[in-house]
Amino acid sequence: MKERFYQRDVISILEFERSELEYLFEITDKFLNYIDRKLHLLDGKIIALAFFEPSTRTRLSFEVAAKKLGADVISFAGEEALSISKGENLTDTIKMLDNYSDLIVIRHRLEGAAKYAAEIAEKPIINAGDGKQHHPTQAMIDLYTIKKLFGAIDGLTYGVLGDLRYGRAITSFIYGISLFRPKKVYLISPEALRVREEVLELLRNKNIVYEEKYNVEEVIDQLDVLYVTRIQKERFPDPMEYEKVRGSYRVTYELLKHGKKELKVLHPLPKVDEIDHGVDVSTYAAYYIQAKYGVPIRMSLLTLILGAKL
Amino acid sequence: MKERFYQRDVISILEFERSELEYLFEITDKFLNYIDRKLHLLDGKIIALAFFEPSTRTRLSFEVAAKKLGADVISFAGEEALSISKGENLTDTIKMLDNYSDLIVIRHRLEGAAKYAAEIAEKPIINAGDGKQHHPTQAMIDLYTIKKLFGAIDGLTYGVLGDLRYGRAITSFIYGISLFRPKKVYLISPEALRVREEVLELLRNKNIVYEEKYNVEEVIDQLDVLYVTRIQKERFPDPMEYEKVRGSYRVTYELLKHGKKELKVLHPLPKVDEIDHGVDVSTYAAYYIQAKYGVPIRMSLLTLILGAKL
Amino acid sequence: MKERFYQRDVISILEFERSELEYLFEITDKFLNYIDRKLHLLDGKIIALAFFEPSTRTRLSFEVAAKKLGADVISFAGEEALSISKGENLTDTIKMLDNYSDLIVIRHRLEGAAKYAAEIAEKPIINAGDGKQHHPTQAMIDLYTIKKLFGAIDGLTYGVLGDLRYGRAITSFIYGISLFRPKKVYLISPEALRVREEVLELLRNKNIVYEEKYNVEEVIDQLDVLYVTRIQKERFPDPMEYEKVRGSYRVTYELLKHGKKELKVLHPLPKVDEIDHGVDVSTYAAYYIQAKYGVPIRMSLLTLILGAKL
Repeated sequence: MKERFYQRDVISILEFERSELEYLFEITDKFLNYIDRKLHLLDGKIIALAFFEPSTRTRLSFEVAAKKLGADVISFAGEEALSISKGENLTDTIKMLDNYSDLIVIRHRLEGAAKYAAEIAEKPIINAGDGKQHHPTQAMIDLYTIKKLFGAIDGLTYGVLGDLRYGRAITSFIYGISLFRPKKVYLISPEALRVREEVLELLRNKNIVYEEKYNVEEVIDQLDVLYVTRIQKERFPDPMEYEKVRGSYRVTYELLKHGKKELKVLHPLPKVDEIDHGVDVSTYAAYYIQAKYGVPIRMSLLTLILGAKL
Repeated sequence: MKERFYQRDVISILEFERSELEYLFEITDKFLNYIDRKLHLLDGKIIALAFFEPSTRTRLSFEVAAKKLGADVISFAGEEALSISKGENLTDTIKMLDNYSDLIVIRHRLEGAAKYAAEIAEKPIINAGDGKQHHPTQAMIDLYTIKKLFGAIDGLTYGVLGDLRYGRAITSFIYGISLFRPKKVYLISPEALRVREEVLELLRNKNIVYEEKYNVEEVIDQLDVLYVTRIQKERFPDPMEYEKVRGSYRVTYELLKHGKKELKVLHPLPKVDEIDHGVDVSTYAAYYIQAKYGVPIRMSLLTLILGAKL
Repeated sequence: MKERFYQRDVISILEFERSELEYLFEITDKFLNYIDRKLHLLDGKIIALAFFEPSTRTRLSFEVAAKKLGADVISFAGEEALSISKGENLTDTIKMLDNYSDLIVIRHRLEGAAKYAAEIAEKPIINAGDGKQHHPTQAMIDLYTIKKLFGAIDGLTYGVLGDLRYGRAITSFIYGISLFRPKKVYLISPEALRVREEVLELLRNKNIVYEEKYNVEEVIDQLDVLYVTRIQKERFPDPMEYEKVRGSYRVTYELLKHGKKELKVLHPLPKVDEIDHGVDVSTYAAYYIQAKYGVPIRMSLLTLILGAKL
């Protein structure tokens, strides 16, 4: 199984087989035991972090994973990344990083940027988020969190709540559970942010039972997992539209009390105000644990791709 | 004494006892001997630098201290920090860093941010400056510099010059000397930037002899130490007010010649034009030596807090 | 020869003798063999990267070189650098870096900034580009590339194309070949961007045969090396002027087919649209190989200056 990861590009969670993810999770279990130590599995390797779109959390999580493994990290972000994306063609930037590093982590606003980079670079590419669909390492973290909390990903009822049309983390999560056998998936969003038809088609092809909903209250008592993401005001053509729906997509402790006792709320973070602070300190909140798994998942992936001896 | 530092949050210099600072200075003396070598006391540790407000000097000084000790560093600053402070709640950011690192260094515009972070984080927090009062590691450097220059902090006459109302470095310095037995402290500033009443009250409670002055010329001949900081134009409601006082708060070689031969000028740096270039090359200038002590003081503090074997 | 590099400031390629560059190239040949390994020649050293003007490519290349040698890197760039250049005097910034590091790499918009830094700092300074003339490490890379491609730098016919007036990479390249014995140098640019008189004078003093041209087509069949840089619209007082000349300074595959079969195109990168994509995949394109040599050249230089045992 190891050789399936060696030098592999990671562009979309949909490229993975269930068995591959399960293998990754096994390795991650092992890394969890050594999380407080510096390992030297990637001594002498250089990981390039190319964040054309800012994401402190994802960037730092990859950086910590790399450094805990003994690798060196080079990176650009913020203003610098912006001036690159304006002045220079992506091809030449990727060629530069390909030349300087052993593996490139890329985040980009544009759909397909990671795939394009993978075509140019000889070194493996990890997509740390591009366009509106793909953020495969986030999906790996999400699935691993559920595995750790419930013992299995199969057989659970999922609610996914938020911007299902443009949100890349939530779309990748839907793709991720489609590789398993969920009992049912409720797709909950305002009209303007419904899931795209191609995603629904994919669910049908994989025989995933799903239902679209406008309202989380209706289904809250059936859910094992509620995956929440932010609804951005800017997505609505009419701001009044946003104000109308806003309240019904805020997750409060009150709401969760109508759910199962074991219900867990996930969120890729950062969150703004879509989850009430009361939830943070409740047993429903799984997003801080979820965040913790970012480092060991990425450690496993880096180690496997670069073929370090485990 | 060592155990008093172990896993300790460093929020304000006022939390420290004199004996604790003296212990820190002893350790710093030892580090001074090894300043050109890479030590491996913090191998495998990760230090997070969270600079929500920019400060290249303080950031780099912590970074060098950490790296000289063998630790890895993760950080954000500039644009990235800005977008975090806008989009995301501080709680979640601190939880993220708490998760990724062994110790968090934080700088923030808002008063109390470091204390708040310390309440959230399990890992120790070092305040690298917040609000208008606290910059404890700067005060440690300042006091250590005086100890090295004069052999003692007690018994000296101090002039503190500049923005005593909003300046955090200078306020921390006043707090710092209040832990010792200065002969007298002259608080020199324009009317609009006088020291706050709570600070005066603290000095009275500690029986520190002080006097407020508008004018440095009056007292220059009595001083052993003159601590200078910048007076920012923006602090004055009326720009004409600023132009009026400006000249009298500029420190020139001419002025210093009226002081004692042993008089030393300190400044937390960076300076703009509040000290004449003629002073830089004179024996009065102690600010470049002071800056040099930034790294060994922070090395001591990191080592003690993280409990590395010395 | 080693001792000529020890603790040396690198401000301009013109400070170097031919024999010194040849020695540097020999050392670089050796590093090329170990490029995939982490060496520990600079363990415990700290390299400061002070990029007052952004340049991701040059910055990352120095960073990779330093890290491959085991050194630690501290740096500032982007917004942070900008706020430093506004608020603080360069002297104090350089003194700070001099204090924190073993070697300082500086890039600055202003002519002479690196030289000025070298006067202040005790530690060696490497100019990573300042003003409109000097970028010595780029010239070293360029010359090394030609050496590798043709076996020699002497005896070739060169075309240098682009902004010969304000371009620092191309000016440094002209300076660089002036240390050797080229057969002839064609200086090709629009009227407004002709090479400065002082540069022509230098070529005459060194008995370099040159000729100024407006047009690359005229000479393409004679060239062994065509060195291309960008022509920036902003350089032209009248935008119409720019539009007129634009096309004739774009390098296409069509154009190159009129040249020798062995003709090689160099470019310091990043390029925008001054070279046609068709050229990228042709045998004429030497700029990706040239970019690859950035790391080993800088590794050699850092190692020699810091006096590490080879």
